[in-house]
Amino acid sequence: MKKNNNLKVRFLGGVGEIGKNMTAIEYGKDIIVIDAGLTFPSQDMPGVDIVIPDIGYLVANKERVRGIFLTHGHEDHIGCIPYLIKDLPSVPIYGTKMTLALLEVKFAEFKITNAKLKCVKEGDRINAGVFNVEFIHVNHSISGACALAITTPIGVIVHSGDFKIDLTPINTEIINLSRLSEIGKKGVLLLLCESTNVERKGYTLSETQVGSTFERLFAEHAKRRLIIATFSSNVYRLQQILTVAGKFKRKVALSGRSMLKVAESATKVGELIVPNDTLIDIDKIKNYAPKDVVIVCTGSQGEPMSALTRMTADDYPQVKITQNDTVIISASPIPGNEKSIYQVINNLYKKGAQVVYESIENVHVSGHACQEELKIIHSILNPRYFIPVHGEYRHLKKHAILATQMGMKESRILIPEIGDTAIVTQKNIKLGEKIQAGSRYVDGLNIDNDDATIRDRVHLGEDGLIIVLCYLSSESGKSVQRPDLIVRGIGLNDKQTDEIKDILVKTLTSYNYKDFGEQSEFKKKIRASVRNYVIKKTKNNPMIIPIITEI
Amino acid sequence: MKKNNNLKVRFLGGVGEIGKNMTAIEYGKDIIVIDAGLTFPSQDMPGVDIVIPDIGYLVANKERVRGIFLTHGHEDHIGCIPYLIKDLPSVPIYGTKMTLALLEVKFAEFKITNAKLKCVKEGDRINAGVFNVEFIHVNHSISGACALAITTPIGVIVHSGDFKIDLTPINTEIINLSRLSEIGKKGVLLLLCESTNVERKGYTLSETQVGSTFERLFAEHAKRRLIIATFSSNVYRLQQILTVAGKFKRKVALSGRSMLKVAESATKVGELIVPNDTLIDIDKIKNYAPKDVVIVCTGSQGEPMSALTRMTADDYPQVKITQNDTVIISASPIPGNEKSIYQVINNLYKKGAQVVYESIENVHVSGHACQEELKIIHSILNPRYFIPVHGEYRHLKKHAILATQMGMKESRILIPEIGDTAIVTQKNIKLGEKIQAGSRYVDGLNIDNDDATIRDRVHLGEDGLIIVLCYLSSESGKSVQRPDLIVRGIGLNDKQTDEIKDILVKTLTSYNYKDFGEQSEFKKKIRASVRNYVIKKTKNNPMIIPIITEI
Repeated sequence: MKKNNNLKVRFLGGVGEIGKNMTAIEYGKDIIVIDAGLTFPSQDMPGVDIVIPDIGYLVANKERVRGIFLTHGHEDHIGCIPYLIKDLPSVPIYGTKMTLALLEVKFAEFKITNAKLKCVKEGDRINAGVFNVEFIHVNHSISGACALAITTPIGVIVHSGDFKIDLTPINTEIINLSRLSEIGKKGVLLLLCESTNVERKGYTLSETQVGSTFERLFAEHAKRRLIIATFSSNVYRLQQILTVAGKFKRKVALSGRSMLKVAESATKVGELIVPNDTLIDIDKIKNYAPKDVVIVCTGSQGEPMSALTRMTADDYPQVKITQNDTVIISASPIPGNEKSIYQVINNLYKKGAQVVYESIENVHVSGHACQEELKIIHSILNPRYFIPVHGEYRHLKKHAILATQMGMKESRILIPEIGDTAIVTQKNIKLGEKIQAGSRYVDGLNIDNDDATIRDRVHLGEDGLIIVLCYLSSESGKSVQRPDLIVRGIGLNDKQTDEIKDILVKTLTSYNYKDFGEQSEFKKKIRASVRNYVIKKTKNNPMIIPIITEI
Repeated sequence: MKKNNNLKVRFLGGVGEIGKNMTAIEYGKDIIVIDAGLTFPSQDMPGVDIVIPDIGYLVANKERVRGIFLTHGHEDHIGCIPYLIKDLPSVPIYGTKMTLALLEVKFAEFKITNAKLKCVKEGDRINAGVFNVEFIHVNHSISGACALAITTPIGVIVHSGDFKIDLTPINTEIINLSRLSEIGKKGVLLLLCESTNVERKGYTLSETQVGSTFERLFAEHAKRRLIIATFSSNVYRLQQILTVAGKFKRKVALSGRSMLKVAESATKVGELIVPNDTLIDIDKIKNYAPKDVVIVCTGSQGEPMSALTRMTADDYPQVKITQNDTVIISASPIPGNEKSIYQVINNLYKKGAQVVYESIENVHVSGHACQEELKIIHSILNPRYFIPVHGEYRHLKKHAILATQMGMKESRILIPEIGDTAIVTQKNIKLGEKIQAGSRYVDGLNIDNDDATIRDRVHLGEDGLIIVLCYLSSESGKSVQRPDLIVRGIGLNDKQTDEIKDILVKTLTSYNYKDFGEQSEFKKKIRASVRNYVIKKTKNNPMIIPIITEI
């Protein structure tokens, strides 16, 4: 069994280019899991709501899983837990109080009551099989974010989680650099570090910067109603809005389901401090002058069903956008969302509102470390091996280059793909076997969408559909009635549909249905004859579905 | 007829938020048209290749159209001409030699031979009905770009076209500020000015800057093959690559259909100067050492069929990406293209190439004026009225604010929508009647796609399709066979399809087909019963097409 006693790091999840969001660490019979996130679909996955990792490997090895350790409560780190826990109900889940509070909101939606949640504090150390996991406080755009120091039989692995170095954070401590330094001094075998902002020089601005901008904007727009859209999970941002609102004697109304839920959870666990008499219900804003109100809402990414998008579309009864509104978009567009959010901004301007957003004001700061911060972490941890995680491939690659610039040998750096295993010894790091991993597309209540389903959707959505109805005699196999067409999502004029029917009549005459062993072969002929015509006339290649009715 | 003698500016084209790309100016019986562009589809128009303006108004008034005046040869300014010219073949089209050269490439594709192209030089003045149109040289990211000064019976209209102020341009003169100043001094009634970069402070960098970056990169990567992706229409960029390549004794191979066509056209009209012995055919690169070659290709936006994307996908026989390649993306992502281009960059890194792009180097400059440049134009023209054009609504709005900051009264600024008419007198500017305008979706050879077709596509693409086959007795109207389902683009398991069939059997039993006057009413019942089940079980709302076969 010596072979099994390698230290293995398996990358189980993370969609395409987004980064690793479910990682297993194995030694001997023991497995621990770090994070289990979801991602949001790209343009080539129409109709898909969310994308979760294939959990097949963990299900197959569920007896060996000693614990799930969550670095923080963002969707891309905890979103897969409800799907995972159905198959692994007895595995303990460790996270800080904010992380677990957000998880409990999910569990309520999924009606999950049997999960073994274990609340930890920063500094806590948990034994799980041969592993010992220490939670270390970091700064990020959500409360309760941690790095993990995992002591294994052959050395210490540090997983950075998502982090930045914020020397003037809101409601929390500065990242625990001294503990990380201690760990670094004792020796780190492997660093798994996030790479999101590796292309940005210097340091990420402090969250406090946004507060200063808010103070100035509140003063400048003192006579106007304020509407601020931001990420619901950024409790620090909401805290700053509450503080500034208090100073300017404005009431704050929250809007959007996730905004309300996160605020409630964060207040319950003490991560959000709501000054007395500040929060009002959104239904009550009509009782106040617009200048005495701030509405904090979801929709900073232009999401179609979010509060801000609905306000903009006159589809939000409590809030009608007027010329007396100043809307602050306190977020950056996540790549792929640019068009949606600019559409919302355009519509706000059309309604006469003033709009303040990142390209014109400092109303947002990132939660991820820039180049100099990453260098600090590399320098104090000084790991023997390094795997960049969390980012597109270009980020991982640049992070690897940054590490070599700091003196690390290239042979000690690995950029694995999803499904890869990194095998780590004290002497080297290398790729091991591939394991079952991939994406599952969740859409409504359905998590069984396979690639073929998505491919069909793309085909239908790009090129439309022609249903061909053929009526054949069950006796002679001959066509007994002119074929019918049902056309959707492709523009054909009457002349074209008529010519297609002529072609079909010819096809049905030249082949006899009865001569075909397989109906599918006959259908292929029908499909080909229609496709040739349609491509020639329209350059479109719609899905063609022949339906044979025997009469 | 006095009423008709108003000066009218009609905004005929421009999709959604992109800006105005086809404008008519009318006085009495005379109409002239400025530009006729196309735009590219957004995510909510699956399968659409291009979007062109509805030309119904011009077709209905074609006897009155005295000329089409093109500011420059970009697709969003000339792309609709082939569609327009079919209905207005006798209208003269005025443009500079580069603009017309690009138009002729289009005409060859569309097999148009009867267009009346009139080549103008900067400084030329053309009479068209009551109007006189002067072409004034400006800087932009394409050769032969002009602003237009249109003398009308009641004053001068200046249309800026797309422009920047480049004081060190490549192969051309500095924008003709002195002529614009003269015109301004005599009095400008109305300015139509582009607004693309109004959110950017200061000045746009000169094209020459990119040349300096290229020189440095050529030196740094002297031992590697270089692949540069850029906009095919940016002849200045190509000129700089040719010049730097000559200096470093590299051969240049062009790749991508539009790159080759634009280079050929630009060389023919003298806008591109190709040093002797520099250009080689892409098939010949194998005869040279990689370090002696530069490949200039299309694909800077991650377009699926472009040269660079195909190279990245191992689908380009002449060029295989290797670890010895440095790929320079000399362009910015156009909003909406971010994910595609980053995907290409990620794939290039995976193949071991080095990649240089805008977020890490100055390998691109914009062709559009920033705030200070816009202010210069406003200041020297000092127009009585102002309409911002070309940009999203947020840009137009900010441009209007910029004009008021320079002292213009708000009542003298108009932000019309597509289909609006601006009525201009010496005393005021106001919105007049709406006219026929809108978008036509071109897809393959088909330009008749209406909104319903696109809606169907979105529906099919998002939620998939269920075809319900019911077999009814033509005598009794009763179901004579268990219904069949054809399911595409939605994942249903066997149990679910079986339950749907059960429901259908119930529906077909409880209603008799013969009782319905209209088949469509009966189909509604079938559709409703399937939809209820599917939404409940999957939260999906697929397109449901019932097909009734009478047996």
